[in-house]
Amino acid sequence: MENDIQKKFLEYVKKINHYKQAMALMAWDGRTGAPKAGVPQRAEVLGTLSAEVFAMSVSDQMKDMLAALDKATDLSDIVLKSKEHCQKTYDRNTKIPADEFKAYVMLQSTAESVWEEAKEKNDFAMFQPYLEELVSYNKKFIEYRGYEGHPYNTLLDDYEPGVFTDTLDRVFAELKAALIPLVKKVSNAKKQPNTAPLYAYFPKADQEKLSHAVLKHIGYDFDKGRLNETVHPFAIGINPNDVRVTTKYNEHDFRVALLGTIHEGGHALYEQNIDHEFIGTPLSGGTSMGIHESQSLFFEKFVGQSLPFWKNVYPLLKQHAGSQFDDVELEDFYFALNESRPSLIRIEADELTYCLHIILRYELEKGLFEGTIEVKDLPRLWNDKMEEYLGIRPENDGEGVLQDVHWSSGSFGYFPSYALGYIYAAQMKQAMLNDLPNFDQLLEQEQIGVIREWLTKHVHRYGSLKKPQEIIADITGKSIDAKPLLSYLTEKYSNLYELS
Amino acid sequence: MENDIQKKFLEYVKKINHYKQAMALMAWDGRTGAPKAGVPQRAEVLGTLSAEVFAMSVSDQMKDMLAALDKATDLSDIVLKSKEHCQKTYDRNTKIPADEFKAYVMLQSTAESVWEEAKEKNDFAMFQPYLEELVSYNKKFIEYRGYEGHPYNTLLDDYEPGVFTDTLDRVFAELKAALIPLVKKVSNAKKQPNTAPLYAYFPKADQEKLSHAVLKHIGYDFDKGRLNETVHPFAIGINPNDVRVTTKYNEHDFRVALLGTIHEGGHALYEQNIDHEFIGTPLSGGTSMGIHESQSLFFEKFVGQSLPFWKNVYPLLKQHAGSQFDDVELEDFYFALNESRPSLIRIEADELTYCLHIILRYELEKGLFEGTIEVKDLPRLWNDKMEEYLGIRPENDGEGVLQDVHWSSGSFGYFPSYALGYIYAAQMKQAMLNDLPNFDQLLEQEQIGVIREWLTKHVHRYGSLKKPQEIIADITGKSIDAKPLLSYLTEKYSNLYELS
Repeated sequence: MENDIQKKFLEYVKKINHYKQAMALMAWDGRTGAPKAGVPQRAEVLGTLSAEVFAMSVSDQMKDMLAALDKATDLSDIVLKSKEHCQKTYDRNTKIPADEFKAYVMLQSTAESVWEEAKEKNDFAMFQPYLEELVSYNKKFIEYRGYEGHPYNTLLDDYEPGVFTDTLDRVFAELKAALIPLVKKVSNAKKQPNTAPLYAYFPKADQEKLSHAVLKHIGYDFDKGRLNETVHPFAIGINPNDVRVTTKYNEHDFRVALLGTIHEGGHALYEQNIDHEFIGTPLSGGTSMGIHESQSLFFEKFVGQSLPFWKNVYPLLKQHAGSQFDDVELEDFYFALNESRPSLIRIEADELTYCLHIILRYELEKGLFEGTIEVKDLPRLWNDKMEEYLGIRPENDGEGVLQDVHWSSGSFGYFPSYALGYIYAAQMKQAMLNDLPNFDQLLEQEQIGVIREWLTKHVHRYGSLKKPQEIIADITGKSIDAKPLLSYLTEKYSNLYELS
Repeated sequence: MENDIQKKFLEYVKKINHYKQAMALMAWDGRTGAPKAGVPQRAEVLGTLSAEVFAMSVSDQMKDMLAALDKATDLSDIVLKSKEHCQKTYDRNTKIPADEFKAYVMLQSTAESVWEEAKEKNDFAMFQPYLEELVSYNKKFIEYRGYEGHPYNTLLDDYEPGVFTDTLDRVFAELKAALIPLVKKVSNAKKQPNTAPLYAYFPKADQEKLSHAVLKHIGYDFDKGRLNETVHPFAIGINPNDVRVTTKYNEHDFRVALLGTIHEGGHALYEQNIDHEFIGTPLSGGTSMGIHESQSLFFEKFVGQSLPFWKNVYPLLKQHAGSQFDDVELEDFYFALNESRPSLIRIEADELTYCLHIILRYELEKGLFEGTIEVKDLPRLWNDKMEEYLGIRPENDGEGVLQDVHWSSGSFGYFPSYALGYIYAAQMKQAMLNDLPNFDQLLEQEQIGVIREWLTKHVHRYGSLKKPQEIIADITGKSIDAKPLLSYLTEKYSNLYELS
């Protein structure tokens, strides 16, 4: 009997998963050269499939199976954890009244196009009423869904399951206290890198070859994926045997493609190495935004922007590039590649300043949902905080409060994951050094495979079986902690900029 | 009430159509660079979607709707014809017992891989028992499904609705009587083309540009499609706003890509120009294999291999090619491009000999299903007929009876559509000349648009609304007729080869 219900449940979630795989392929296709005129039909087909997925997630059959599984004993790990995922989705999708959710979806789509125009016109007032409505809907949804401790936690839980304001307040306070003065010191340092060679002409065809070579280098399996060019780079896992990466090429800044490819490659390594037993279940993707970001950042920052990596790869770069690096010493190249400077736009920020961009957003979102901040005050608060944290002030809202798309699509609670990615990655690196004290030598000797295997063993293979905090605890024996990241940044940038 | 049932029915078929669009995209993706390791999962997802489509096509809901529509009056044309399509599918899918059909599907997949090995080893005996079983299943299915006149008609109807053995016997007899002596004369003609320049090195990158240019030239809309490279070229309509084409490049025979692209482009022009009102219904694709082939062949043969077309395009070719054509006169080039020679392999055959390859297969299939031919006798009959029709005899079964994949997947009744495509195209061309007597000038003056519009008006826009014979009757006022094709071939090849 209990085997029957497990089997029936797994068949059911497999069907949902198959529809999602078809949708994932359509999403990939839509961004990699699909014909323009096909957009409306594609949207309709996606609508049909997602309506089916939604219907299956809240069906009576799902309800009955979840109830039966709750009573069952001896569930397999896969069934138990899959059940938890489905229960969470069921609760979220049934607690919000359907008509309100439909109105909200329509608001999202309007708000996104209003935001686009407002950003272009630097006109926050235009976007303000929509943002107010988005916040107000989300406040209502939080009431429907319930919350533990702080209302914002319900939103955080959607992106980073189980990581709440208590944790974030603690680690972000620690980060802020140390980063603000460190950023100031770096900005005022006498020693500064010569970045001119980075911007020399680097033909796209050569960058393409370099991107392929570097993806292979970090262990991306081209039998389980492909690399294409898009305007906005991304990685997408259709299933662990089909994980695709895209990148973009700037012929006057090769870092865009090179580091972007490594970043998306890090996401892809995670998805390619998820245990194949999970295929067809809700466990077959990454467990959270933050853990996902930890993998992309690990490869981008701790590998791709590290000196030992470049000791090995610099000749490869020279081989693909023109003559621009012929007279550039490795150490000077490495310094240029890691230039740090306060800047207004989050997605262009370097690793030293990045988390301050996130903390600013976190403080504003948290204030909105506890009711201590009003939407109308966001532009001023944003600009004040930028000045306080990074010493620069936006001249208009387009380069300030309007810069990111997230809020316009109602994605509150998403931003903290980006900073958590840095924090997790640094914690992993520190733990990894206990097992692989020769980390630097591995990079120098082109043995990234050993590093990738360590991450697969401790992170990748689990897919969504473990929650973020479980992964971190199992690796480090500790909770989420900002210290490893702070040590890494302090040491690296003190050395680079010769800070006293 | 009647409006309600129409609306409900259209919603239902739209959902089926949306699933089919997702499947079509997956099919395209699977052949254009999808990761190898993803194949098994892709098959599973396709299986889930096609099971859903099958279930919807035979559901009680479908049955009830079809019954209700049968009683309804004042149905719109779209509903009426869509109902006919769904009824046909319902009948086919319900009359065959599910367990037998499942066994047959498994046999198909085994038979295909056995065929592949048998072909490689030139070993018909290896494939024979599987082919016997495939034929025997199809005979049973014909009994279940019923037939009019001749059992083979039920299979023909799957590919060419309403075109049966009486018609095919008549037109194929006429073709055979005229083509066999004509082919003989051409083979023995003193004047033969110099084809050496066709095989000169032509870099792929230049061929790619040429393929794009020629697709645009014939009116393919790149906003509604894209061109990619594949091992086996094809065109696929996901919906009329998303119709994709692929081609392949041979650097030592530019015709492969050029004529292949035009051929697939012809298929695509059909699908791109189907009335947008039909989107989301069973009418939104081409009406039959034969009518589809008539469009690809019209563009490949009556346009792409015609002298007036090349008067205009030859300079374009020279511009993209190396110097190989510098000293080749247009007329000599045209003659070389239309070289005709009996050959063993259907897919490499020229337009003069092609139909004889088809007639041979038709006679064998018809014999199998009326019981006058046994599977074991196929290799001998095949070779005898090749000798009789084309004057050449295969040395082994790989270049004879085993050459095509169709039978191994149980596709009996498919082959005649290829010859019908030639016949239809010639009938259309003859009718077109009444409206556009300046056909040749249009080609010379780069006004193919006028020709394409004529075909859209008389063929494309109807999608699957009209059956093949209706289309031909509405265009020509006559039934299916081989004479226009015979006149075209006789005149063209008598001139080219200076036959007396």
